[in-house]
Amino acid sequence: MTIKVAINGFGTIGKRVADAVDAQEDMEIVGVTKTSPSFGCQLAVRKGYPLYCTFDEEDKIAAFAGAGYVCKGGLSELLSICDVIVDCSPGKVGAENLEKYQNAGVKSIFQGGEKHALTGKSYTSSANHIENLGVNCTRVVSCNTTGLSRTLVPIYELVQGKGSISVNSVMIRRAADPGDSSKGPINAIKPVLKVPSHHGPDLMTVKPEIDITSLAVAVPTTIMHLHAITVNLPLGHGLSTEKVLETWKNTQRVIVMNGTKNKITSTAEVMELARDIGRKWGDLHEIFVWEDGVSLQDNTLYYFQAIHQESDVIPENVDAIRAMMETETDWKASVEKTDRAISAYYGI
Amino acid sequence: MTIKVAINGFGTIGKRVADAVDAQEDMEIVGVTKTSPSFGCQLAVRKGYPLYCTFDEEDKIAAFAGAGYVCKGGLSELLSICDVIVDCSPGKVGAENLEKYQNAGVKSIFQGGEKHALTGKSYTSSANHIENLGVNCTRVVSCNTTGLSRTLVPIYELVQGKGSISVNSVMIRRAADPGDSSKGPINAIKPVLKVPSHHGPDLMTVKPEIDITSLAVAVPTTIMHLHAITVNLPLGHGLSTEKVLETWKNTQRVIVMNGTKNKITSTAEVMELARDIGRKWGDLHEIFVWEDGVSLQDNTLYYFQAIHQESDVIPENVDAIRAMMETETDWKASVEKTDRAISAYYGI
Amino acid sequence: MTIKVAINGFGTIGKRVADAVDAQEDMEIVGVTKTSPSFGCQLAVRKGYPLYCTFDEEDKIAAFAGAGYVCKGGLSELLSICDVIVDCSPGKVGAENLEKYQNAGVKSIFQGGEKHALTGKSYTSSANHIENLGVNCTRVVSCNTTGLSRTLVPIYELVQGKGSISVNSVMIRRAADPGDSSKGPINAIKPVLKVPSHHGPDLMTVKPEIDITSLAVAVPTTIMHLHAITVNLPLGHGLSTEKVLETWKNTQRVIVMNGTKNKITSTAEVMELARDIGRKWGDLHEIFVWEDGVSLQDNTLYYFQAIHQESDVIPENVDAIRAMMETETDWKASVEKTDRAISAYYGI
Amino acid sequence: MTIKVAINGFGTIGKRVADAVDAQEDMEIVGVTKTSPSFGCQLAVRKGYPLYCTFDEEDKIAAFAGAGYVCKGGLSELLSICDVIVDCSPGKVGAENLEKYQNAGVKSIFQGGEKHALTGKSYTSSANHIENLGVNCTRVVSCNTTGLSRTLVPIYELVQGKGSISVNSVMIRRAADPGDSSKGPINAIKPVLKVPSHHGPDLMTVKPEIDITSLAVAVPTTIMHLHAITVNLPLGHGLSTEKVLETWKNTQRVIVMNGTKNKITSTAEVMELARDIGRKWGDLHEIFVWEDGVSLQDNTLYYFQAIHQESDVIPENVDAIRAMMETETDWKASVEKTDRAISAYYGI
Repeated sequence: MTIKVAINGFGTIGKRVADAVDAQEDMEIVGVTKTSPSFGCQLAVRKGYPLYCTFDEEDKIAAFAGAGYVCKGGLSELLSICDVIVDCSPGKVGAENLEKYQNAGVKSIFQGGEKHALTGKSYTSSANHIENLGVNCTRVVSCNTTGLSRTLVPIYELVQGKGSISVNSVMIRRAADPGDSSKGPINAIKPVLKVPSHHGPDLMTVKPEIDITSLAVAVPTTIMHLHAITVNLPLGHGLSTEKVLETWKNTQRVIVMNGTKNKITSTAEVMELARDIGRKWGDLHEIFVWEDGVSLQDNTLYYFQAIHQESDVIPENVDAIRAMMETETDWKASVEKTDRAISAYYGI
Repeated sequence: MTIKVAINGFGTIGKRVADAVDAQEDMEIVGVTKTSPSFGCQLAVRKGYPLYCTFDEEDKIAAFAGAGYVCKGGLSELLSICDVIVDCSPGKVGAENLEKYQNAGVKSIFQGGEKHALTGKSYTSSANHIENLGVNCTRVVSCNTTGLSRTLVPIYELVQGKGSISVNSVMIRRAADPGDSSKGPINAIKPVLKVPSHHGPDLMTVKPEIDITSLAVAVPTTIMHLHAITVNLPLGHGLSTEKVLETWKNTQRVIVMNGTKNKITSTAEVMELARDIGRKWGDLHEIFVWEDGVSLQDNTLYYFQAIHQESDVIPENVDAIRAMMETETDWKASVEKTDRAISAYYGI
Repeated sequence: MTIKVAINGFGTIGKRVADAVDAQEDMEIVGVTKTSPSFGCQLAVRKGYPLYCTFDEEDKIAAFAGAGYVCKGGLSELLSICDVIVDCSPGKVGAENLEKYQNAGVKSIFQGGEKHALTGKSYTSSANHIENLGVNCTRVVSCNTTGLSRTLVPIYELVQGKGSISVNSVMIRRAADPGDSSKGPINAIKPVLKVPSHHGPDLMTVKPEIDITSLAVAVPTTIMHLHAITVNLPLGHGLSTEKVLETWKNTQRVIVMNGTKNKITSTAEVMELARDIGRKWGDLHEIFVWEDGVSLQDNTLYYFQAIHQESDVIPENVDAIRAMMETETDWKASVEKTDRAISAYYGI
Repeated sequence: MTIKVAINGFGTIGKRVADAVDAQEDMEIVGVTKTSPSFGCQLAVRKGYPLYCTFDEEDKIAAFAGAGYVCKGGLSELLSICDVIVDCSPGKVGAENLEKYQNAGVKSIFQGGEKHALTGKSYTSSANHIENLGVNCTRVVSCNTTGLSRTLVPIYELVQGKGSISVNSVMIRRAADPGDSSKGPINAIKPVLKVPSHHGPDLMTVKPEIDITSLAVAVPTTIMHLHAITVNLPLGHGLSTEKVLETWKNTQRVIVMNGTKNKITSTAEVMELARDIGRKWGDLHEIFVWEDGVSLQDNTLYYFQAIHQESDVIPENVDAIRAMMETETDWKASVEKTDRAISAYYGI
């Protein structure tokens, strides 16, 4: 059986999820939507993805033909032929969309821009794949929360039974996307004055056992977020810096590298490494941890990790589809399948 | 009695300390040193500060005359006429200098670039003025540590007797000075891989009762550092967000302003505020706290503060002189005196 | 006679012009306007400038008292007591304002944000002071045009009678103001697609004899603009690189310094030099020319100059007042008077 | 016949040239060199490129095996099996290398970091392919010069016979590479004080008929260079803005797009477009011209173009190989062949 996947919204996230799904043997893209004929339609055409209109109004659908694109219909028609729809629309329209999906009897995945309350269920591959088996609707959490899940869930599991962990995280965020030339600041640090920030606590929607708070600041860079993380471990945790590093090195979608030895001293060099890997858009699906920035002292674990905002959630969307469709109950097996297919896709 | 103050090293910090001392009624600048005749000498001449050579070699002293500057002698001669010398040399030569100062029987103040071990005594106005009364040598801690002292000591004092506080601080540092065009990064976040960083723990050299750790990252900005701080308060602390704000509003050299209402959303607007105040170099001696970024929830206090790297330690140097000379035992009185004189100096 | 000057709009430009006027012996500030009570009012109060409301509506005037400020009335009242008003309002309201000023019989000066057509007359000190003698209304041109006038008018005068000069200028602009944290780009170069740009040709409103075109790009910096200029000289110009440098060194409000020898390799070090000079806001009224970036080869002169956007036009406003009031017909004498007063004001 | 190509130096340029050559049907990579076993070797292994040592010393060759890499020998051995070697070494060793290549009887291509004097012959596809037919050694000019050649040679050809063109170009350069986190400035504009700069005049090594001068500044961005260009056309040129645009739209390796309509307002959006195209590293081999930034007024043509520093010269290296091997005498046919192969390689 091939899972029929639709993508509602073919922008920064949508175009990436489409390619990742297209790379899988057990899935196919049956359509992607655009609100109107624009440059992004060419990408869909080039990849051979059937093009639909986000709306059902006839004039809006007809506008595509007017611009020379074949549009196969409105959202309703797309919903009639898919098993799952991945909502990559720009947010704020989640509730309205969810109703349409439910009425059409189609399973749906939302992104981290929507609130947990919308779906009542959230997802990361390593935290709660099994809890998402067969659900009709879930939410893949944001890039930051996904990143926290990747490194904190394994630590949580290491000390499970010995006590709880509490986490303090400061998000140093890129202030604008790489293709955005209007947003600043150019020369300033901008605190997110709502404290604590929502990023950390959002992790508890997928792993409530991890007690976490966070603060966030925006800085003048366009390439990656960075997290400065302090974990308070339970007494008698039995861990060491080496044990933590070994665990992460064996964790899927986490890259651990020595910054000093490899001359990777900042997010700039991390992104250059990603370009060399050769995935489209220079994406880095993995979370990057600086080996020599990890230190466990007494009961406190310190580390830094870098997050590629546009792409770390992409493979999680693929895994979430398998969970909802119950075609793979073992999350590690799904991750293995997803990532191998993506790599083959890019010839790497 | 007027305290005779010498400045060894007339660079970024030295020129500011000289002006701040010069503004005081109870002090006078008897000389400043330069290693060789260069642009900075003009500043000294313009201000009327007697110019000395950092070294005692005759040819080095003579070089000044060759460039058209009146040099009154070498460091030894300067040491023979001063009560206190403020060492603002670029670091690494601290030990050597200290010996010279001690041999000359002159009290000395070092800056935060030197280690606590050199002087065995460190200083901030609010933390330990009284412990520095009459000492022969002390160290004014770094800009970051001074900033932490300003806001954390009052919190510590509020809960004294109720239990201890522990602090987690992430320093988001400007990667280069405003006048430095060679250092980067231009578009990256750079973690300081030595963890925990030295900045937080250095606070314990002036206030050992505050348990603190820190992480640091450098970001592409040249104007201010920003601290994202989480304070764990003791159970039964009895504080509230309002109480904390009220305390800081009554704390000298701390500015508390609402970012949203005043449209001060980043360090850029804080620096613009400083330029409007009208101090030379656009300096901001005060620590800036965003009122609407302060939140006390249960036992955890969150806040952000901005630090003007070149200048927050300047008035502390003046207070340290009074402590060492025992001319003012009450730190608050010294701060009042220092700051009023500086303001009058700039006509503000 | 003391010229009574009003400032309409007390923002970035207005507050600077007010201070510069206040520093002059032959002028006084009789009032400054704000649209509503806000932070900027404190600056006016601190300086002792009488505060007026930009509007005449009673409720708007009353709002100031409500916020604790003494407001002496509306714009009409201010117009009834001044000789000249300097319009520093944010633009687009020029025509409306001009009518009010004319009806009140008050001379007025507009800034470079307004078009030449509004006033029919434009002004820079070195280009056409004498043509502005006694006029009722003029426009001080923009920061960029003022900068071009400073260095190009002397070159034009050097070759006058030998032929005409034609100029090609590329403006590399700071994309945001230092206190603006919302505008980008963070990591991009943004061409001003309207070509040629208006900056260069605007010079012809004050010196029509100079044939000039320009292109402009915005780049991620907040501190200064930079001009890359190529001047085509007439055959038989008789000049040399040395002669050009000597001329500029003797030109008021132009600073010529060797970048390599003085380690001033970018606008960052130029701004640091300005902070050392000690003017409020770290302003640099002068145009900065890199001596070692000037080269005359055959008939082509190449050079770079840096422009401090907020401040180079400030002293020109003072000179323009004298021209309009006909109290000083010699532009060089006015400049001398203006600049000496400003320097004295800041104790430099 | 398949041309056997070696790459000496497998860094930023070398790895890209290798992939571009590997994509061609009429060429194959017989080996790439590294100075020592390092991260870059993995890229070569992954692509299946035989690995050689830059040096012939046995211990240096043996070091590769020690790090787990199969090294097939030193440079001499590589030279014994190739027809052409592309020198992508970091510069300054050009003369030494050239002698080795000549002694081995191997044709060689150098990059723009070397001077024209080294090879006595330079190359761009559109300017002088035919003059490079059969030569033993040539130099592919720098990214900036290549960019100038792409848009200026067609203009030159349009007016040929009607008179000469003269060009004034200002290069606004990215100050650091995307993977470089050490270089600044963070917040400044840095003029290249050697005037005129070498970039423009270097065009005359491939097309001496175009009279050109240039100035350069470095700005805080890491992604692209931008050129602001003014062309003086001969009287009676017979061109119009439309004619120029039409010409460039029909020119290979030039992309002309309307910035306003496509919301491509800066180099950030241009790079995002390149990421969407899907070439490895997000490269853009083409020169990007803003359609709405092109204007021909009287005899002056104004335009802006953006240059992707790492990649615009890559396909030129491929064409240069064909010229030297005389396997394709028509430059447009070579370009067509090169670009089609590269596109197919990336599945785009």
